[in-house]
Amino acid sequence: MKTVDLNCDMGESFGTYQLGNDQEILSYITSANVACGFHAGDPATMRKTVQMALEAGVAIGAHPGFADLVGFGRRNMEISPEEAYDLVVYQIGALQGFVRAEGGVMHHVKPHGALYNMAATRPTLAESIALAIYKVNPELVLYGLAGSELTRAGKKIGLLTAHEVFADRTYQQDGTLTPRSQPNAMITDQQQSLQQVIRMVSDGRVLTQQGVDIPIQADSICIHGDGAHALEFAQSIREALLGAGITIAARFAR
Amino acid sequence: MKTVDLNCDMGESFGTYQLGNDQEILSYITSANVACGFHAGDPATMRKTVQMALEAGVAIGAHPGFADLVGFGRRNMEISPEEAYDLVVYQIGALQGFVRAEGGVMHHVKPHGALYNMAATRPTLAESIALAIYKVNPELVLYGLAGSELTRAGKKIGLLTAHEVFADRTYQQDGTLTPRSQPNAMITDQQQSLQQVIRMVSDGRVLTQQGVDIPIQADSICIHGDGAHALEFAQSIREALLGAGITIAARFAR
Amino acid sequence: MKTVDLNCDMGESFGTYQLGNDQEILSYITSANVACGFHAGDPATMRKTVQMALEAGVAIGAHPGFADLVGFGRRNMEISPEEAYDLVVYQIGALQGFVRAEGGVMHHVKPHGALYNMAATRPTLAESIALAIYKVNPELVLYGLAGSELTRAGKKIGLLTAHEVFADRTYQQDGTLTPRSQPNAMITDQQQSLQQVIRMVSDGRVLTQQGVDIPIQADSICIHGDGAHALEFAQSIREALLGAGITIAARFAR
Amino acid sequence: MKTVDLNCDMGESFGTYQLGNDQEILSYITSANVACGFHAGDPATMRKTVQMALEAGVAIGAHPGFADLVGFGRRNMEISPEEAYDLVVYQIGALQGFVRAEGGVMHHVKPHGALYNMAATRPTLAESIALAIYKVNPELVLYGLAGSELTRAGKKIGLLTAHEVFADRTYQQDGTLTPRSQPNAMITDQQQSLQQVIRMVSDGRVLTQQGVDIPIQADSICIHGDGAHALEFAQSIREALLGAGITIAARFAR
Repeated sequence: MKTVDLNCDMGESFGTYQLGNDQEILSYITSANVACGFHAGDPATMRKTVQMALEAGVAIGAHPGFADLVGFGRRNMEISPEEAYDLVVYQIGALQGFVRAEGGVMHHVKPHGALYNMAATRPTLAESIALAIYKVNPELVLYGLAGSELTRAGKKIGLLTAHEVFADRTYQQDGTLTPRSQPNAMITDQQQSLQQVIRMVSDGRVLTQQGVDIPIQADSICIHGDGAHALEFAQSIREALLGAGITIAARFAR
Repeated sequence: MKTVDLNCDMGESFGTYQLGNDQEILSYITSANVACGFHAGDPATMRKTVQMALEAGVAIGAHPGFADLVGFGRRNMEISPEEAYDLVVYQIGALQGFVRAEGGVMHHVKPHGALYNMAATRPTLAESIALAIYKVNPELVLYGLAGSELTRAGKKIGLLTAHEVFADRTYQQDGTLTPRSQPNAMITDQQQSLQQVIRMVSDGRVLTQQGVDIPIQADSICIHGDGAHALEFAQSIREALLGAGITIAARFAR
Repeated sequence: MKTVDLNCDMGESFGTYQLGNDQEILSYITSANVACGFHAGDPATMRKTVQMALEAGVAIGAHPGFADLVGFGRRNMEISPEEAYDLVVYQIGALQGFVRAEGGVMHHVKPHGALYNMAATRPTLAESIALAIYKVNPELVLYGLAGSELTRAGKKIGLLTAHEVFADRTYQQDGTLTPRSQPNAMITDQQQSLQQVIRMVSDGRVLTQQGVDIPIQADSICIHGDGAHALEFAQSIREALLGAGITIAARFAR
Repeated sequence: MKTVDLNCDMGESFGTYQLGNDQEILSYITSANVACGFHAGDPATMRKTVQMALEAGVAIGAHPGFADLVGFGRRNMEISPEEAYDLVVYQIGALQGFVRAEGGVMHHVKPHGALYNMAATRPTLAESIALAIYKVNPELVLYGLAGSELTRAGKKIGLLTAHEVFADRTYQQDGTLTPRSQPNAMITDQQQSLQQVIRMVSDGRVLTQQGVDIPIQADSICIHGDGAHALEFAQSIREALLGAGITIAARFAR
């Protein structure tokens, strides 16, 4: 029987600025990636998000990003591998403070935005991130783009890794996501999106933009928490997965 | 036999900006208060400071402050008790990330600057800080001004507390420090300073500006890490304490 | 014939975080206070807000606040008069960059949040702010709480000042606003609110919570830009003022 | 008769952190590039630096950089051309506030660090920066790497441009600086360094690492303000230039 995790970025509010439907989306997901104050989030938001996730029984992960609040961590920054190591350790630790204060256990780490994308293709950066996670706590699961340098680096150092797939993005023959700058990068038809997800989880395969079918490991599906149809789409994915006999849980095998 | 701890603020560099003689001062002290990135410090500095402190065998503590880098955390900010709780949890956690990554154990927490001073006289703020420490890790020692609301709050919640005294400051009859705005706030004569310290540790008493002798608990002495004579004065204090038969160690009884 | 200005804080978005209905509210007001990147706002938001205000023919002012993004500039910070001077000069200048780049002319300065409130009662702080404005450009109008230390300091140094009144707040016999912590601080009945405003502008008088009628100078009315009923209330005030024969314009006499 | 400008980055202190020998170096230079609070500098430092430069009769320029204080603006950030425009307008404006408050006139703009380097080779980024300067004040001089995309963009839009050369760096046959990652990037011999500078200014030529002599426009020489030998080297350059009959002034022809 197949199992898949549904993860969502959250805790992205900052001070008076509110973002996302965290409380609502928690009903649909199994793991939450909590912003740690660098690209989004602040101490109060982190505390509240951890409390909500614990109440919802959702696995908690750190979502470290670049120190770029105005750019929401989405702009590439040419930091050194050592700087990446340091900012990941810092942010995991900061969230761990709240998790521990609330009596919880941290489950995973998923880099955010530009850090996630850069680590998907740069081995040295990926290894720095994996090392940071491993040294803070080797029990943490590393979430990364399926088949990327990041998951490879995690496996190499001995971390559990979760290969992440996207329901609403198309894939290239080499396993990468079609860049957003290209047409057909996004899947806008909901049925098509659900079928792709089911097939990735059930069969471990995805049909690429080149018309070629490739293998893909789908341990966790990224769910968007904001936007008009976020909750509706999250519910649709849940129903489609359950309907296909797939278990939804944040559970990863070595 | 009497025991006293020598503590020093460190890790206060930021990016390209260097501050303090951390490596040198570590030879003289028994506990280090490491800035956590809000009033000073950054992830790289925190990692290096933790590594140096562990190599020197010096107890490591978090030194949380206000989110006021340009003011170095020295300006009062009217934050709510809940905001104080959150920023203390965050900063302890962030430093704990580095301590754990390096295989160390965190020993204590000492609030910085304006947060330290405000918590010395405001019970609600003091209790929020003590709660934050307790919830993250009840084994941590809370450092606060001797006889202040902060040490009182720590004791009340069940934390070990370290009553901190100052070698180069004069005291008032009510146990508070003479404000820096007043003449005679600072002790500039080194012999007088050393005598005051020895007497506070050995006899638990200090002669106040009013000419009245009062009791004071002296668990830890604050050593300054920058300034022209910092290292020399640190060495003098060590020698004077050892000469008076006092043990220097970061060790606190319940 | 009486004239009054309607002002509104705007440009308070930050990066991906959106706040307020700036485009809509510009139809109802005559002067806009634009956040300058310290308590809210960022360079892109400032540019867009200046462009929108110029298109709408609304007078543009700088809205400098404390360097406290997470607290939205609403928390008192004990900064020195010199620090206040510096942060006001900096923020006026930054906004002036955008105003000049767009071919506009800056009209006024209104301190934000805690800085506004502290300057209302502290003469030295108020004088520092007034000096900062005067030295950058003596033609700028200083907006401050009606009858406060801030307007007094502005007048003293030779600035045009705009005494600001609030439609939805009650007043005390000494001319101060009833603190929000007290009952009856807010006027929730719209008719009562409109009547108070009309009377302040037409007669220069307001009925205080003590039942005593006092004189008040009402040069500008603060309009809120966010909240469910902001636009509707702005429209109601406009109609009530026009109906009472009052001209709405950002025009102040020496 | 030849004229050349000597420029130096300054105002790079931040809060309690002191950097550079600004007061001393002002005796040797003719134009000062003042940090504007993003990569370094703060409002108080900006005010003091402007005051010192005006007293020394040195031309004042804005030195805008990336919003990356911990990285000192030296790390490439992939910002959009529009974001570059906005941050340059903001920072010029902020400094202009202090210049105007002190009764001075701003003279030039020189981008800092990674922004300077990226703009040297990227036409679109360079044009955004030039546009920002032009729209704030078309009289400002744009300083950029000699023969780069940045000076080209400045000239194209109608700004006066200053081609900047480096005394202590070697050049490649295509006119670019030898990357610091390569051997022979730096000229460590002082005599060799002075000879290169004199030749660039007097003859408009430089001998490249490929052994080929190329033309170069040398309007301004970058002087370093920190480091052990900064002042001594600044004095040597002055003397060498004056000895070669070259006038030292911040004066640029169209």
